[in-house]
Parts: sequence; structure tokens; C-alpha cells
Amino acid sequence: MSQKPSIPKGTRDFSPIEMAKRNYIFDTIRDVYKLFGYKQIETPAQETLQTLMGKYGEEGDKLLFKVLNSGDFLKNASDAELAERNPAHLAAKFCERGLRYDLTVPFARYVVMHREEIQLPFKRYQIQPVWRADRPQKGRYREFYQCDADVVGSDSLLNEVELIQIIDTVFQRLKIRTRIHVNNRKILMGIAETIGCPDKIVPITVAIDKLSKIGLEGVNAELTENGISPESVERLQPILKLDSTDNESTLNLIESFLKDSEVGQKGIEETRFILNTATQTGLVNELQLDLTLARGLNYYTGAIFEVTALDTPMGSITGGGRYDNLTGIFGMPGLSGVGISFGADRIYDVLTALNLFPEDNLDKTQILFINFSPEDIATCLPYAKACRQNGIPSEIYPDSVKMKKQMAYANAQNIPFVAMVGEDEQQKGVITLRDMSNGEQQQLTIQQTINFIISKKTQTL
Amino acid sequence: MSQKPSIPKGTRDFSPIEMAKRNYIFDTIRDVYKLFGYKQIETPAQETLQTLMGKYGEEGDKLLFKVLNSGDFLKNASDAELAERNPAHLAAKFCERGLRYDLTVPFARYVVMHREEIQLPFKRYQIQPVWRADRPQKGRYREFYQCDADVVGSDSLLNEVELIQIIDTVFQRLKIRTRIHVNNRKILMGIAETIGCPDKIVPITVAIDKLSKIGLEGVNAELTENGISPESVERLQPILKLDSTDNESTLNLIESFLKDSEVGQKGIEETRFILNTATQTGLVNELQLDLTLARGLNYYTGAIFEVTALDTPMGSITGGGRYDNLTGIFGMPGLSGVGISFGADRIYDVLTALNLFPEDNLDKTQILFINFSPEDIATCLPYAKACRQNGIPSEIYPDSVKMKKQMAYANAQNIPFVAMVGEDEQQKGVITLRDMSNGEQQQLTIQQTINFIISKKTQTL
Repeated sequence: MSQKPSIPKGTRDFSPIEMAKRNYIFDTIRDVYKLFGYKQIETPAQETLQTLMGKYGEEGDKLLFKVLNSGDFLKNASDAELAERNPAHLAAKFCERGLRYDLTVPFARYVVMHREEIQLPFKRYQIQPVWRADRPQKGRYREFYQCDADVVGSDSLLNEVELIQIIDTVFQRLKIRTRIHVNNRKILMGIAETIGCPDKIVPITVAIDKLSKIGLEGVNAELTENGISPESVERLQPILKLDSTDNESTLNLIESFLKDSEVGQKGIEETRFILNTATQTGLVNELQLDLTLARGLNYYTGAIFEVTALDTPMGSITGGGRYDNLTGIFGMPGLSGVGISFGADRIYDVLTALNLFPEDNLDKTQILFINFSPEDIATCLPYAKACRQNGIPSEIYPDSVKMKKQMAYANAQNIPFVAMVGEDEQQKGVITLRDMSNGEQQQLTIQQTINFIISKKTQTL
Repeated sequence: MSQKPSIPKGTRDFSPIEMAKRNYIFDTIRDVYKLFGYKQIETPAQETLQTLMGKYGEEGDKLLFKVLNSGDFLKNASDAELAERNPAHLAAKFCERGLRYDLTVPFARYVVMHREEIQLPFKRYQIQPVWRADRPQKGRYREFYQCDADVVGSDSLLNEVELIQIIDTVFQRLKIRTRIHVNNRKILMGIAETIGCPDKIVPITVAIDKLSKIGLEGVNAELTENGISPESVERLQPILKLDSTDNESTLNLIESFLKDSEVGQKGIEETRFILNTATQTGLVNELQLDLTLARGLNYYTGAIFEVTALDTPMGSITGGGRYDNLTGIFGMPGLSGVGISFGADRIYDVLTALNLFPEDNLDKTQILFINFSPEDIATCLPYAKACRQNGIPSEIYPDSVKMKKQMAYANAQNIPFVAMVGEDEQQKGVITLRDMSNGEQQQLTIQQTINFIISKKTQTL
């Protein structure tokens, strides 16, 4: 009858220790979102396939988890259709719903469905899992959390500045040193226009991005392979030879390069405002104009953001940008938005690699009352209650088992204090409190115990 | 191209206001769980069907949401099987995974899979959504959160006492007056034994439960209909005529009734310990032995809990009990556990009905800086930053639109203070702060503004 249990490939259980660390990340992000006035929403795990299909490209459609209709799911398929054995066709007959693939499409759907009750600009954040039927591999899971913040209904570049401030504040609080890369699709369009290939923005950007890996000649070869004419490749050289890490001088150089491109000039203007204004707010992390940043070129229309950690190689740990017409696909055109998404799993890996998780988990149990006998418990119960009323997480070991076993439990749970209330203590009205870090014991009243633990907690904050 | 979007039947979007209220409930439950030393875990939304099937009865199997295998999901089904059109058979061929139906089976699976790293007793809590393909109706959803706490690996009745304390603390904090109903399956078994029908525990309990609705004669008729002999019905009369709401006298009466039933006496002993010890800890809510409580008789083996609100009719808002052999089905026998589950949706409805949600949502934005012109924003940005550094959620209206629109936004978001920093204020180095509750305005420095808002917040706590 019994079976050896397992969980689906690419999914994970999270243990108490992992949860404490994950909550540290989520709580930090949530606190900062709130501080900037973003409001939380949640959407259902299942969306209709009508909402999901066609929103993530052909590849995305394949990666959607589809949920079998309840009851007789076969009823919409004819015998002939079944005999045909076309998976995509039959999946559409068998399934009306799929699992959320990201938080952006559900957000767009939410905005359209609730437009009457939403006050624009609408600043929302959402922290929920998404599911993708991707091939699982190191660092890529079939279930993972996204932590998104978006503003819709405002074209102001102040939103971009604010999102940079949010990124800066989150990583400051997490103590991760990062570089915030900024680019603008309009600048990339301007470059493509200026060298005479307005339709080649993606291959041009992808090639530029490889400069540090394959060198100037390699990039030029790749551009040629992608059908960029020798004249255009030649005209691109000033950009490839740009050798400035100072934002303002980079901007000035590109500005003259893009002097004949209207969209390019607009991109320069936007980027200059964003970089200058964000810098004026006093950032802790690096902010760098990065012309090679080509994230999400299929949907971003203005600013593009990406964040990398300075002290450990990890790829992008946060990304975002501005997009037009988020809700057009659901029949509500003209709504622009800008948003960011923190990659919780990668941030977790960075914090682990750099040993940056806080030592002390303040949620953990602070005091364990040893269970000597069922009779002694009558004394411990009000003591534990008093501790809890003072905000101190407290446990009474439930069984009167050997002391050694109870101490082993305290050690395994990293509980800093153990309380012993035997006959002697009961007569004196005290507790013998043992500091598990050094084995020191002292006899204290319950009120003294509470004060002592609170003072210890305050010291470690 | 555009489509009118919708969400699947029985699922819900949660707006910012609803989220603030739901978080109030979840945070309260979570804080109390932590205070009693429970540790959080999370398990994946998808479990293998091998884990899920057969755990919830035949009806439960039908209510599982099954996830279509990726790629060619048809490959395991022969042409003949397809032609047969048997939904249950083909679902098993097409699907290997299903959505979590509750938190208990995943917890059992977790304990077995992670037994090497778990220290017993293991006190875990878990707050995650579950999915059921139930017919949606008022108050019943296809996606809803469960908030479970369980201890496994300890037979001590102190765990039952502690869970009652947790229930009591949660509802005290939520300000909901409740009655905590306690029963014990061993008492019910004792009653069934004593009247000579040891195998009729369920119909006997169900009939007793209807006493207040259908009266003594109705109950006797129903018992007879269910095949209970007239002698047994006669012997049950003292229980049906029990007329005590005092726990100790009820216990004494049943104790003599069950004097020849070993299991019954054990149930009395357990229940007396639980009720007395829990009462000694000083409960705020009512605690009542309720012989009609018949929840989960298929799996509970000892104590049974259920909570009802005193001031509004809502049915059970929390339930739980002790079960043996939680993990036996996964090949790890002999592990007993006891747990409770808070019904977040019903608690939400109770708080709404009794108007008990706290007025002030402390997370909400406290101050909105009016955007007069792009130039003035340079002054507001450091002000907003200073507010946030002092923990005050702050927004700058992103667009320089009409004052009226910006004030409408502040009103719609219930933002208590609006800051105006025009030319005049900039020259004086002050902010004009408007209290939106009464329209009063004063000119303050940024530090005075911060102190003022913090003092206002403290007053309303």
C-alpha cells in the first residue's frame, strides 16, 4: 500500500530555515514597495486559456501548464478529433484554464476587469508564484515566485526614477552591492536608424552586447552575418568604440551620434532625466547607462532596467522597463506602464554566496521550558504565557522525556535560552535560565527572565 | 482581436483593500503561530497524482484539479483507449500531477521525504492556497487559503492545550468572541459501545447533532431509521437528555454513563485534562465540551476542535483534532499528530459582518506630495526620501496635472496628509501640510512634518 513519495520535477519544498530566509527577502521587498505607496493585489493561480494563450509567443504557449476540465473533459472532442491525436488541438478541447505564467498578463487582465474601481495612476505590487513547464535545470524551476511592481496610467518619468529608488533601497537593505543598468529602447532605435537599419534593432543590440566576449572584430563579423551592410557596420563603429563609463560623457557622445534621429534624441532626453534625477536622490548602488542592455526588446518601449550583483557572478537579479499599451490586448488601449520584477531565487543565491543572511532570526523561539513532569507543567504554562504576552516566542517541551533529548531539541532549533522549573525553583518562585550559547545559568523570576530576554534581543538588533 | 477578459468560475481577484484585510487576518494568525514556536514550511502547488489520489475519498478524487502533461500528453494512451472515452481512465494517462487539495497530505508527504532533517516533535505551520473543483457557491471557492498548524511526533495532550491557547489568542487579537467546541472521538466510541452499536458511531453522532433542530423524538426516529435497535436507542436517552452546559458536570455525567467502556474512560480522562489545563491558562473565549461535535470522524482519533463565532451565524470558522498515523500511507507508520486550521474566508466574513476590521491601515500611504511642475519636484524628492527613511509611506504624484485631480487621488487612496511645496514654500524652506480629514493647513519644515505624522500615527494606534 505504501509508496515512496516524491514531488514533481522542477518544484521545491521549503524548510523552516529556507522559509525564514525567503521571508527575509519578500518582507524587505514588500516593505519598500509599501514605503513608495504601491498597493498589493493578488490574482488567481488559474487563468482562462483565453487570457493566457498568445501572450508569451509560440514558445510560451508550449510552456503553459494546462488544467484538465473537470468531469467529462472529453465531451468537446469528436471521435475523429481524438483519432487525429493532435496534442495542441486536443489540449484546447480538454482544457479551459492554465496556470499563471507571469504576473504581468494577469495584472493587465485585472486592470481591464476592474477599471471602474481603479484610480489612475495605479501603483500595484504583487508577490505570487508562477508556473512554467520549462526543462528544469540549476536555478530554473517550474514553480517560482515573482515580485513585481508596476505603475499604469502615468507617462511621467518620475515613475522610472522612483523604481530606481526602490531597487536601490531594497539592495541597500539586503546589503547587496549592485549595479543598476539603464538603457532605453528609443536610443537603440535611434542607433539602428542612424546606421540605416531601422528594422535590425535586435541583432544590432545582441551583437553590441557581445563586445566584451568576442571583441570588435567578432562583433563586426556577427553584424555582417545578420545581413547588416558593410556601410552600416562602418557607421556603427563609433558606438562600438565608445569607451566611457561616465554616464554624462556617454550621453554626450551618443547625443551627437544620434543628432539626426528624432526617436534617438527623445531617448537621450528621457535617459538623461532619469539618470540625473535618480542620481540627485542620492543612490547607494551604482547607476550606469548600458547601451548593451537589450532585455525585453519585444515589449519595452522606453527605459529598460537590469540589476547585477557586484560581488558575485549571478546574471540579472532584477529587471524591468516601460511598455506601452499593456492592456490593449484586452480591449483597453492607450494605457502605458512601467514596472520592475525582483528575482527572488537569484537574490537568495546571492545572499547565500555572500553570506549576507542575517544571523539572528528574530522570529525563532527564544525560550524553551523543560518538561520535567506533567505536574511541573502547571507552573510553566503561565510562565510561557507571560513570555508570549511580552512578544517572546516560547515553547514548552510537550513530553516529559529525558533532559538530554529536550536539550538536543533546543540545540537543533537554535533556541537561545532554556528554562528549568523543578521542585526547588517552584519553592523559590524562580526559573533557572540557561544561556545555550555559553552554558551559564542564573536564577531569575519570570519578570526578570522576560526583561533579560528582551534586553538580549534588543542588543542583537 | 481584443477579448473581454474574465477569470475562471469560483476564483477571485483581491483588490488592495481586500488584500489589506486579508493580510490583517493572515498576519495575526502567523504572529500567534510564531509566538508558540511553530515553524513555517511551503510545499509546491503541484503534487504528483500518486501523492494526491485516494487520500480524500472517491468524491475528493473527482474534485482534484489535474494538470495536463507537457508535450505529447497523448503518448501513453492507445487508440483503443482513446476510442473508449473513459474520462477517469484517460485523465490518469494524460496527467501525472494535480493541484494541492489541502495542506495535510502535502505535510505528511513532506515529513516522510524530509524525515532525516526534521527534529521531532515537529511543529509546523503553513499558509497557502488549495484548489478544489467544487461547484462554486456563496462562500465556497475553487481556490482558497488554508492556515494550518500541526505538531507531529508527540502524543502529549499539552499540544491540544497549546492549540486551544493559539485559537484563543488569535480570536482575542481579532476581537471576535467565539466558542471553542471540544469533543473526543474516544468518548463517541464509548457511547456507541455502551449502547451496543460500536460500528454506528457516525449515524449516532450525526443524530445527536440534530437534537436542537428536530427535538428528542426526531432524533430517536432518525436513529431507528439508521438501524439502531430500540434497546440501543433507549440506552442512549440519558445522553440525549443531558442538560448541562458546565463542562465538569457534563464530564461527570458521561463518566458514569461510560463506566464500562475502556475507550470511553480514556476519552473522558483526555478531555478532562485538556479542558482543565486549557482553562487554567486563562482563556478569553468560551471553551465547551460538545458531544454533538462530529467533525472529521473518518480521520480524527482523539480530541476534536471546532470554533464558532458568538455574535454572527457563520458555521465553523476553525477546526482541528488529533489523528494517528498521518504518514503511514507514505510508508512511515506510528507518527501521531494534532492540528488546527483557520478558515480565513469565513473569518473575513465574520470581521466584515461585525465591522471589526481596524479602521486605520497602517501600511497605507501617509503623505502625498502635490506635483505642481517638473521643476518643483527636485525639492519634493529629498522630502519624500526623508519621510520614507523615517518609515512613512510617501508618494509624489507623478504627473503635473490639475490640483483637483491630484486631490481626488489622495481622497480615493485615503491618504491622510497632502504636502504642497510651491515657490513660496521653497523660498521659506517649508511645506504646506494639509490634513485631509478636516482641511486644516499648516506650514512646517520637513522634520516637523515627519514628527507630526509620526505623532499622529502613534495616537491612532
